[in-house]
Amino acid sequence: MPSRPEADDPLLGDLSEGQILRAILSRTAPATHTILGPGDDAAVIAAPSGSVVATTDTLVHGPDFRLAWTSGYDLGWKAAAVNLADIAAMGARPTALLVALAIPRDLRLSFVERLADGFREACAALAPGCSVVGGDLTVSDVLTVAVTALGDLEDRRAVTRSGARPGDSIAVAGEMGLAAHGLAVLFGRFREDDRPVPVDVSKLAAGESAAVAAQLRPSPPIGLGPMAAVAGATAMMDISDGLALDAGRMADASDVTFALDGSALGNNPERALAGGEDHALLATFPDGVLAPGFRIIGRVQERGEAGVLRDGRVVDVAGWDPYRDWDSAVG
Amino acid sequence: MPSRPEADDPLLGDLSEGQILRAILSRTAPATHTILGPGDDAAVIAAPSGSVVATTDTLVHGPDFRLAWTSGYDLGWKAAAVNLADIAAMGARPTALLVALAIPRDLRLSFVERLADGFREACAALAPGCSVVGGDLTVSDVLTVAVTALGDLEDRRAVTRSGARPGDSIAVAGEMGLAAHGLAVLFGRFREDDRPVPVDVSKLAAGESAAVAAQLRPSPPIGLGPMAAVAGATAMMDISDGLALDAGRMADASDVTFALDGSALGNNPERALAGGEDHALLATFPDGVLAPGFRIIGRVQERGEAGVLRDGRVVDVAGWDPYRDWDSAVG
Repeated sequence: MPSRPEADDPLLGDLSEGQILRAILSRTAPATHTILGPGDDAAVIAAPSGSVVATTDTLVHGPDFRLAWTSGYDLGWKAAAVNLADIAAMGARPTALLVALAIPRDLRLSFVERLADGFREACAALAPGCSVVGGDLTVSDVLTVAVTALGDLEDRRAVTRSGARPGDSIAVAGEMGLAAHGLAVLFGRFREDDRPVPVDVSKLAAGESAAVAAQLRPSPPIGLGPMAAVAGATAMMDISDGLALDAGRMADASDVTFALDGSALGNNPERALAGGEDHALLATFPDGVLAPGFRIIGRVQERGEAGVLRDGRVVDVAGWDPYRDWDSAVG
Repeated sequence: MPSRPEADDPLLGDLSEGQILRAILSRTAPATHTILGPGDDAAVIAAPSGSVVATTDTLVHGPDFRLAWTSGYDLGWKAAAVNLADIAAMGARPTALLVALAIPRDLRLSFVERLADGFREACAALAPGCSVVGGDLTVSDVLTVAVTALGDLEDRRAVTRSGARPGDSIAVAGEMGLAAHGLAVLFGRFREDDRPVPVDVSKLAAGESAAVAAQLRPSPPIGLGPMAAVAGATAMMDISDGLALDAGRMADASDVTFALDGSALGNNPERALAGGEDHALLATFPDGVLAPGFRIIGRVQERGEAGVLRDGRVVDVAGWDPYRDWDSAVG
């Protein structure tokens, strides 16, 4: 996309809140489930099964993304995708997003327009029928995108983390470790003096390009969440912090042990275990049952000392914690 | 509330995300409408009428509040109240809040605990049955509280801004201008060298004390929103940016003119017209109909040149715009 001349692309500080909101809303038309879209005090969204699934997740400039690496479009896409994955992980179908933006005044209108494009296109690609139904805009020195996603269970029960039973198979749909590979490429190759610099795609090998794309614009298999629920998944969650940590959470919630098969974790099992941000779906199924798009990576056992085993050995990998691991001075 | 010794009150930077979340969630127990509360990928909330009303509103340190004036408790209360008001303004009953916190590491645990207390007690006082069902926590240099509120229409139609008809009476429930008075007291009396300093309540006259409380812990009449809908309100919204601006928005949406009676606007009509943040409910009712708690302040006319008249004269008051009116250098 060619960049627009600055004369046609005002700074947000030179516009009113209303002008900025109109630019966003003209790009995010309400979809299937919207009964009343943006413009009033609140939106109204269909909840045909008599309940609504709701989750919220925030991306903050610094710990969660860098503008040197992430475009407005990528940011909108990722903020949508990570929230859609949490809805899918309950076995629900996403119906609506609410987007709260806190944006510095020195960004340009085109950034916000592309952000809206990213939200719209992520919904269209990952969760057709879902759309941005409302939002809020305020000024802040730190660019912050807080998204709430809503979903409908279509008369199914929610698939929680606590239903895994000994004998169930453990299965995954989606990438594991690819987004972490992408982050390693960004940190390793696109920084100068410890500061992020724009990505030069001509310097990327094909595999690196896919990894960077997975980090910046993840594509979790949203539609497979409801299919897993229909197939009879006993537990499900999305892998946001790496398989080891998230499988451990599910094992603890279900009071079982997850015995993983290292040979089923791809070319780089370490990265699959440690690497977050792919938002793959981790689910357990009764023996002999498997939903489309899922692959078996292990089996649930009676609870032992450890929550997660790999080929019989204890796995202990700490995930990423923003309070412990993010240092704004280092970046 | 006596402040806790620092030894018992760790900095957030010395805790993990999980520890902080547990401290919050232990103080915000799920209520009536919660089918599945915090702890999984998403919450599940009852939506008995087959739709859900949803809104989001964010408070950012600087433009929206100052920690010198606002305690954690006040911040939680206000973040809840402003979102509950948007649900009530649709004629819906609030069922759930999702709270996305972006918090600097140099705040203490007690701040977050009191924030959670404020959310809980605002729900209990203003919208019984509603509670915090989920949230997200991340680190940021700018304290940011993004809240999404959900509500149920109880089989009624949503009351939008666009339904006011000529001949309807215009009515208000709640305070108008009190929160703005409070803000004026804070800016006028509790700053030194252009920076906010803590409020010394002993320096406040009784009226000032109520005004400051209305600014820091607004109490919109949430329960009256559903009652207005039941009574037959033709249009409704909450007054967040002052009566003049918000009545103008409703008049524009309904393509009518709002003729306000200056004598019905209280002791300080200018402040009622210009002052925001009370989150009073503005509604129109068919002639002869009025919901409990509402007082008539004017009558809807066929659309004329202006959207809002006061005693026959055009009212033109600009509201507050964070992009135009907030300057972090001035504060």
